[in-house]
This record gives sequence, C-alpha cells and structure tokens, in this order.
Amino acid sequence: MSEQAQFELFAFWRSSAAFRVRVALNLKGLSAHEQNIDLDAGEQRGAEFLKISPLGSIPALVQDGHEPLTQSLAILEFLDELQPSPPLLPSDLYGRARVRSIASMCAADTHPLIVPRVKKYLQETGGFDAAAWRAWQIRWLGAGLAAVEQRLASAPETGTFCHGDEPTMADICLASIVAITRVFKITIPDVPTIDRIMTACDQHPAFMKADPKRQAGAPK
Amino acid sequence: MSEQAQFELFAFWRSSAAFRVRVALNLKGLSAHEQNIDLDAGEQRGAEFLKISPLGSIPALVQDGHEPLTQSLAILEFLDELQPSPPLLPSDLYGRARVRSIASMCAADTHPLIVPRVKKYLQETGGFDAAAWRAWQIRWLGAGLAAVEQRLASAPETGTFCHGDEPTMADICLASIVAITRVFKITIPDVPTIDRIMTACDQHPAFMKADPKRQAGAPK
Repeated sequence: MSEQAQFELFAFWRSSAAFRVRVALNLKGLSAHEQNIDLDAGEQRGAEFLKISPLGSIPALVQDGHEPLTQSLAILEFLDELQPSPPLLPSDLYGRARVRSIASMCAADTHPLIVPRVKKYLQETGGFDAAAWRAWQIRWLGAGLAAVEQRLASAPETGTFCHGDEPTMADICLASIVAITRVFKITIPDVPTIDRIMTACDQHPAFMKADPKRQAGAPK
Repeated sequence: MSEQAQFELFAFWRSSAAFRVRVALNLKGLSAHEQNIDLDAGEQRGAEFLKISPLGSIPALVQDGHEPLTQSLAILEFLDELQPSPPLLPSDLYGRARVRSIASMCAADTHPLIVPRVKKYLQETGGFDAAAWRAWQIRWLGAGLAAVEQRLASAPETGTFCHGDEPTMADICLASIVAITRVFKITIPDVPTIDRIMTACDQHPAFMKADPKRQAGAPK
C-alpha cells in the first residue's frame, strides 16, 4: 500500500462492482491503491485471491489490521458510515429505502447474471456461443435498466440524479450497469430518464475519474 | 389490509426473498398481511404487479400512504431503521460490513441466478432441459454456500449465529438460501458451520414461523 493510500482495492478496469467502490471513494475523498485482478486471465480464481474473497468476486477493500471487505453494496454502506460526508443515502427513512432498492435492482438483480463465472459456465457447460452470450447480456441489462427507468420516470423524488440533486448509492449502482453496456457496446433503447441522469454522472468528477476506460489495464 | 397488519407483503410461499422479509418482520414483532403472487403461474409478470415491482420481483412491502418498497436487502435495512430493536446489524462498523457482505453473498451473488425469470429464459431460449436447470441450481447454490462457509468457518466473529449469538441480516439471507435447497431437495455437502447455524435458526421462532412449508399455498 502506498504511504498516502488509506485502502488497498482489489479491482479490474472494467469491473462494474469495482467501479462502484471507486466512485464512492472519490466522492468521500478517500484514496486506495489498486491491485489488479485480471478477470480475463482468471486471476479471481487463484488460491491467493480466494483467501481474500471466497466467491472470487471483486472488489475487495483491504485496510491494514482488518479483514478484507467484500461485496460492493456492503462496501458502499461501510464507506458511508466511515466517512458520512457527503452522504450516499438520503436523510429520510423512505428515501433511503428507495435509493437502496434502486441500488439493489442494479447490483443484486442485474449485474450478478452477467459476471465472468456465469459466462464461463454458460459457454463451457450450457452450450452458449458468442451470440447466445451477447443475447443473454442484452436480455438482463435491458430488463434491469427498463425496470429502473420505470421507477425513476414518474417519481417526484427523481431529480438531477436518481434521488434529488446529489449522487447517491442509486446513481453509483446505475452508472455501474451503464458502464458495462458501454464497455460491451450494447445500446439499451427507451430509457430517457437514465440517459439524462448518466449525462449528469458523466460530468461529475467522482464518476469521471472512475470511468473504466481511464483505469490501468484498459485497452487503448 | 387487515386492521391489525402494519404492512401488506406481496409474497409467494417458497420465495427466498420473501422469506427474508418474513423473518425480519417476525424478529421485529411487526405484522403484515400477505398477498399471494403465484410465481409458478407467472403472476409476477402481470401488469398490475409490475406497477408495484417493475422487475416483477417479490417481495414488495406496502405501507398505506407510501410507495411500495422492493428488494429484500433494502427492505431489511428499512425494517431495521424503522424498528431498531432487536437489531439486524452489529453495533460496530466492521461487524456491520461483515454481516452485510455475507447477506450480499447470499441475496445478491447467489439467489438472483436461480429465480423463475432466469429459469424461463434458460429453458425457453437457452435450451436447458430439467437436468441442466437442476445442475445450474446446484452449481450456484453450492458455490454460494461454500464461499459463505469459508467466510464463517475460521472467523472469531462467528458464534451461535453468523455474527455472534443473535441472528442478523447474515443469518436471514443465509437461511433463505438454505430454505431453497430444502424446497428443491438439494443437498450441499461440506458446510458444517452453516449446518450448525441452520440448526440454531430452525429452533428460533422468527425463522420457524417463516418456513416456506408453513405458508399459505405450500404443497401439503
């Protein structure tokens, strides 16, 4: 860990879940030294990394003297408690439930379906070719984003961002799904509210700095 | 909604995510009137229910005068804030991160892979027959539980339950995955710590009352 970094973050340039933690660290003004786990090379299944993250999932956030923290939603909650300002959740009970629900729609009900271990299984055991895998990606990314769009479009709570005019966990998780669609050049149509909110995220320094294309290891 | 019930809960007898909310309500001493959404009949894809839960996912928790709450992890956090005693999270920062991480390993990285909409896609589009679907269920339930076992087995924080001697969100989510294995008669070997913790859950009234087999609509 570098002298300045407060954390070590095990991540990969295009990982959606690592993106979430990067944005949260940026918003909170916290720093992490990134340790690259090459998902394409299968490094997440190595014995050493499985000691840190038993599911082989990234990110893992490590702080000296503490057990590694895994699971992006848990890490977002941790960072929000560690450094409460600026908050990643609204101040009211029902607002927090709404933001956490949108975050889960993205991070729990959408992203786990399209991770490398699922791709590996569907290709090696399920008989999926490249086109079938792409159709699978489009199906679940599309379903997730359409559902979030429905939730956002008509709600009075929706502002510049998913909930009001400052970014929350909901924007972090939503942007992490949109980031995947961009990496894989998948266009999800008819999500105007999401498109508008993504424009706001794209102009926010904490999101810009976390862009997969700007990370070490990203293709030129 | 009945006069006594504080919530309306859209659920299905064997739903793992609905089980989580049932246990939390029981632990908190809160009551809900259940509205059955028959997943086998596809009722979750009906236009009326999609207005309540845009992803067609259950549970949805409805309280008069408020928007429906969806996503079990968000609902658990909501109930814990609404009614703080007994707590579903430990009192320390790192303990909370550990409990939320185990909860996510179950509810975010395991369960979404084996829900009805994924089964429908794999059978109708992916060419999976019944045996291939069962192998898929076993693969992801096994991977999830093995990873949680690794996290629990050696940790000093593990007690009678996943974190100390009282149930937390981690036990709720872990028991919800084990409940699925029981419904589908899938045995996951070599998880002795989980087996021990499940014995404690099986003897806890809040978990007993939430048992899928005891819910309306369950097969005799």
